[in-house]
Amino acid sequence: MQKSDSTNPEIITRNPLPASRKIYVPGKVHDIKVAMREIELTDTVHNYNGSNKVEKNIPINVYDTSGPFTDPNISIDLKKGLPRLREEWILNRGDVEELKEQSSEYGRKRLNDKSLDHLRFEHLKNPLKAKPGKNVSQMYYAKQGIITPEMEYIAIRENQGLENIAKNPLMVQHPGNSFGANTPQGFITPEFVRDEVAAGRAIIPSNINHPESEPMIIGRNFLVKINTNIGNSAVSSSIEEEVEKAVWSCRWGGDTLMDLSTGKNIHETREWIIRNCPVPVGTVPIYQALEKVNGKAEDLTWEIFRDTLIEQAEQGVDYFTIHAGVLLRYIPMTAKRITGIVSRGGSIMAKWCLSHHKENFLYTHFEEICEIMKAYDVAFSLGDGLRPGCIADANDAAQFGELETLGELTKIAWKHDVQTIIEGPGHVPMHMIKINMDKQLKECHEAPFYTLGPLTTDIAPGYDHITSAIGAAMIGWFGTAMLCYVTPKEHLGLPNKKDVKDGVIAYKIAAHAADLAKGHPGAQYRDNVLSKARFEFRWDDQFNVSLDPDTAREFHDETLPAEGAKIAHFCSMCGPHFCSMKISQDVREYAEQHGVEEDEVLKKGMEEKSKEFKEKGSEVYL
Amino acid sequence: MQKSDSTNPEIITRNPLPASRKIYVPGKVHDIKVAMREIELTDTVHNYNGSNKVEKNIPINVYDTSGPFTDPNISIDLKKGLPRLREEWILNRGDVEELKEQSSEYGRKRLNDKSLDHLRFEHLKNPLKAKPGKNVSQMYYAKQGIITPEMEYIAIRENQGLENIAKNPLMVQHPGNSFGANTPQGFITPEFVRDEVAAGRAIIPSNINHPESEPMIIGRNFLVKINTNIGNSAVSSSIEEEVEKAVWSCRWGGDTLMDLSTGKNIHETREWIIRNCPVPVGTVPIYQALEKVNGKAEDLTWEIFRDTLIEQAEQGVDYFTIHAGVLLRYIPMTAKRITGIVSRGGSIMAKWCLSHHKENFLYTHFEEICEIMKAYDVAFSLGDGLRPGCIADANDAAQFGELETLGELTKIAWKHDVQTIIEGPGHVPMHMIKINMDKQLKECHEAPFYTLGPLTTDIAPGYDHITSAIGAAMIGWFGTAMLCYVTPKEHLGLPNKKDVKDGVIAYKIAAHAADLAKGHPGAQYRDNVLSKARFEFRWDDQFNVSLDPDTAREFHDETLPAEGAKIAHFCSMCGPHFCSMKISQDVREYAEQHGVEEDEVLKKGMEEKSKEFKEKGSEVYL
Repeated sequence: MQKSDSTNPEIITRNPLPASRKIYVPGKVHDIKVAMREIELTDTVHNYNGSNKVEKNIPINVYDTSGPFTDPNISIDLKKGLPRLREEWILNRGDVEELKEQSSEYGRKRLNDKSLDHLRFEHLKNPLKAKPGKNVSQMYYAKQGIITPEMEYIAIRENQGLENIAKNPLMVQHPGNSFGANTPQGFITPEFVRDEVAAGRAIIPSNINHPESEPMIIGRNFLVKINTNIGNSAVSSSIEEEVEKAVWSCRWGGDTLMDLSTGKNIHETREWIIRNCPVPVGTVPIYQALEKVNGKAEDLTWEIFRDTLIEQAEQGVDYFTIHAGVLLRYIPMTAKRITGIVSRGGSIMAKWCLSHHKENFLYTHFEEICEIMKAYDVAFSLGDGLRPGCIADANDAAQFGELETLGELTKIAWKHDVQTIIEGPGHVPMHMIKINMDKQLKECHEAPFYTLGPLTTDIAPGYDHITSAIGAAMIGWFGTAMLCYVTPKEHLGLPNKKDVKDGVIAYKIAAHAADLAKGHPGAQYRDNVLSKARFEFRWDDQFNVSLDPDTAREFHDETLPAEGAKIAHFCSMCGPHFCSMKISQDVREYAEQHGVEEDEVLKKGMEEKSKEFKEKGSEVYL
Repeated sequence: MQKSDSTNPEIITRNPLPASRKIYVPGKVHDIKVAMREIELTDTVHNYNGSNKVEKNIPINVYDTSGPFTDPNISIDLKKGLPRLREEWILNRGDVEELKEQSSEYGRKRLNDKSLDHLRFEHLKNPLKAKPGKNVSQMYYAKQGIITPEMEYIAIRENQGLENIAKNPLMVQHPGNSFGANTPQGFITPEFVRDEVAAGRAIIPSNINHPESEPMIIGRNFLVKINTNIGNSAVSSSIEEEVEKAVWSCRWGGDTLMDLSTGKNIHETREWIIRNCPVPVGTVPIYQALEKVNGKAEDLTWEIFRDTLIEQAEQGVDYFTIHAGVLLRYIPMTAKRITGIVSRGGSIMAKWCLSHHKENFLYTHFEEICEIMKAYDVAFSLGDGLRPGCIADANDAAQFGELETLGELTKIAWKHDVQTIIEGPGHVPMHMIKINMDKQLKECHEAPFYTLGPLTTDIAPGYDHITSAIGAAMIGWFGTAMLCYVTPKEHLGLPNKKDVKDGVIAYKIAAHAADLAKGHPGAQYRDNVLSKARFEFRWDDQFNVSLDPDTAREFHDETLPAEGAKIAHFCSMCGPHFCSMKISQDVREYAEQHGVEEDEVLKKGMEEKSKEFKEKGSEVYL
């Protein structure tokens, strides 16, 4: 890696999305500013009888995961990392101390290795840790009745300013069928955030050593979130590419980011990513532990793993995937599967267990792990090491056995006030998805579910962002709190930037479809705003309100490239004389102007009116 | 159009898909040969203890919609059209006569217009029509107890030869939750096909003037089908492009093809397409009728429409979308919608109704339409002219009112033994999809449902193949018989070849996911075959069994291009030392060789065995 490249802000995409600007909504309880994206809309011009009537369309705010990168007023220096938004909040709580040096032996070794200087993040700080006897987890605070700045930030962020326009006609929404049971008030309050975190139904991943991340929540009574994965492997990829992909995936809507690197220099790569990542970062620490024993699973030890946990916790990783549910007795249950164990972490632990004929050390040391987690507020993502890797293996004894164990472990984690989510499948046919959700809620005491897909068929490698978006949307509706994205390269290769974006957009679709079906307050507003723009031929607004304005515009321009076409009252699909939207506007205008109601039409007759309609002509837009 | 181009077979993609050949399975009742695609598989090589054990993998047959184009033994001449597979069957029934000339006035006019000679299909034949008093619909035959060659062809085609390998271990399948109620035998029989068609639960689109099409069935107790749309508009596109797209969409799995052209030379374009189309062709005749009155909906008449129906029926169109349910009284119900009427046919009829203040002439002349349809075996696709165009408008009074009227019309069509399917929405959030299916089955007496998507959110123009594949998979599972594809260009522009393929693959995924969830006999076999190949690192087999071998291979090669990588026992995602599949194979081998069962593992202890495992090494694949 050339430092001059990776720390050069020019390689990072920074321009705001079209017609968008960053706005900051102030808190009421705390002195906070919550970032959102405001999209400006053009006016609607009604052209009745040849004269124009102008209707203003108010800007729409949307949830924004892109962080400071899309705010031109913030200068970004990758060498220094992002502004440390949460640092003051953390220090103000008075329960942390700055360590004199890293606690991890491995971390210190890397730091003192001069040959790594060219790779190292320049402005390393000493890590923070809870003072002895203190618990710094958001769950702990929540249980104490404390509304943290993080909690208020989340309440404001989730609402997207929609509570202020509740009376807007476009705020109409179909009633959903699951959200709202716990929020009679309709919109999210800081108190509701606190309640959900205290109950374990939601988590706020927020390592005290990752103050750069903007607070977000994972829970089924909030907007459905998506996770994106990046990571190099021994075969390809480099640090610069990974940092670039992180910023890129946040730009398009990734809510959290898992760094799954398995190659060289994991430690240094991760530092660059965390220091420049505005969203929580998750890892699978066993991957790095395995690197430390040269890839030989049987050589793994609790001590090496423990040091890795501490190393990563002090860098600022917000949640750890821990495969503590891969118990010795479940492993043989996978032998008759078509695809055995497909989770890397699961297979590593299975190999370790079989080699030593001992119970999984992540299980036997689970309480010690909790002690580490709570000193930094790292959350558990209890890994499903035995998830099915194909349709045939879905919902089998190994998978469900492990899920029950994860439920046990959840209780232990909560005893320590360690925030916990549960990872889920995998590959599951549609009719077997709901049982996964129902069983997870029951066995894991309503801890948030975090699922990979699920993929609803195995036969479409190259398109698994689609096979899995189907399952993801469904399980999101049923109650999954966060969806782990899948890119088109799944099963085939490492995703490039285009793949990352394709995966993110497919999952934003799944998450939003789930929000609509759940009835998240105001979720439908964006659909309504876009559809109104579509109906009124406000092409630019249609593009700008969409999940991917660049692609929408590019696709439109392929057929009708001229700028004039953006204000045309027709589109390329039907041509100028043949547009249903245009005809439909005529119908509406007619019906509205004549106050037509169902019965009237039939009873009074409308011969005269129809004559008028003809005379006036219906070609007003041509 | 240059005739020399459009009739040049080289512009049509003809090469068989990788490792695939066309096979023909003979009938038992009739002298028929049913085309299928056979995919050859490589051997599995088990490498235990350094020595190889070879396991043969039998070829897999898959449903093939590509027609004669992918059979190198059939010579294709676009000027002459495809082989007339069904001609003999039709003539043998003795109930049709060859007309001396076209019955349509417009058709004759075009034929006699010398200026169109350069556009015209060269080998035009005289149309066939039922002899006076005869009904030539498959529904009529079915009700008479006749098993036609079409019906036997379909039974064999649907089974894909799987009934012969019912005992193959990879035929294991999760029980579905809806299919099978009507097929206790598990696989499809000709008699079952006949039953379903007689009951109106399935249709076989098979115009006697389109003998080139291979028989296929649309019904919820069969494989879920997909329709693709092509069509030029006044703004862009040409005849050659349309014929090319037709062949292309069949290649990737389109089961039927709708020609939605609205531009010039509709008549001649359609002739080229039908003569070279191996799948049933549908149209929306009102589009062409409107062209004939220069785009002025109010100038439409029953007579012009009637002549258009006959014109198209005699060319060989297999099903007509007819918006006969857009009743005058429903139109004002759309005035308060966000996007009004978005169906082109619906908006045309709405405009006509309002202009004249008369009831929809498609409704008032419905029995006359039935008389025309049954003389050629054209099927109804009763159009949902009032389908919702956005989430907000879903499931409203206009939509459901029209659906009830379509149910009335179904009964009338069936009285004439005219095969009928019902078109459905549109834009519907996930939690409101099932009611559409349930209501359709109830109101329309179990006539097959044929839905556009539905799109589960409005906010992703550029990705509506995905927003809609989610809804399509779900409604397919709930019972929709055919899914009308949506391309990434929906709402934005006209699809190019890449878009058509993207739309087709997204919908093949949705249809197959639905087949799995319904439990269609043998549906899961292809998933199991592919997953076994994946687990065994048979990369070529994984690509070849997939829906799009070209893309799967290309994606793989981006990261690991060398040919050697196709036989590597690892992939680019994790690298050679770190592959869960590899570790999992070790686990399986271990468990299998040692006969490990759950209890044994715990009770007997395995210290000795774990020692063996370590000694033998787990790196056998490296």
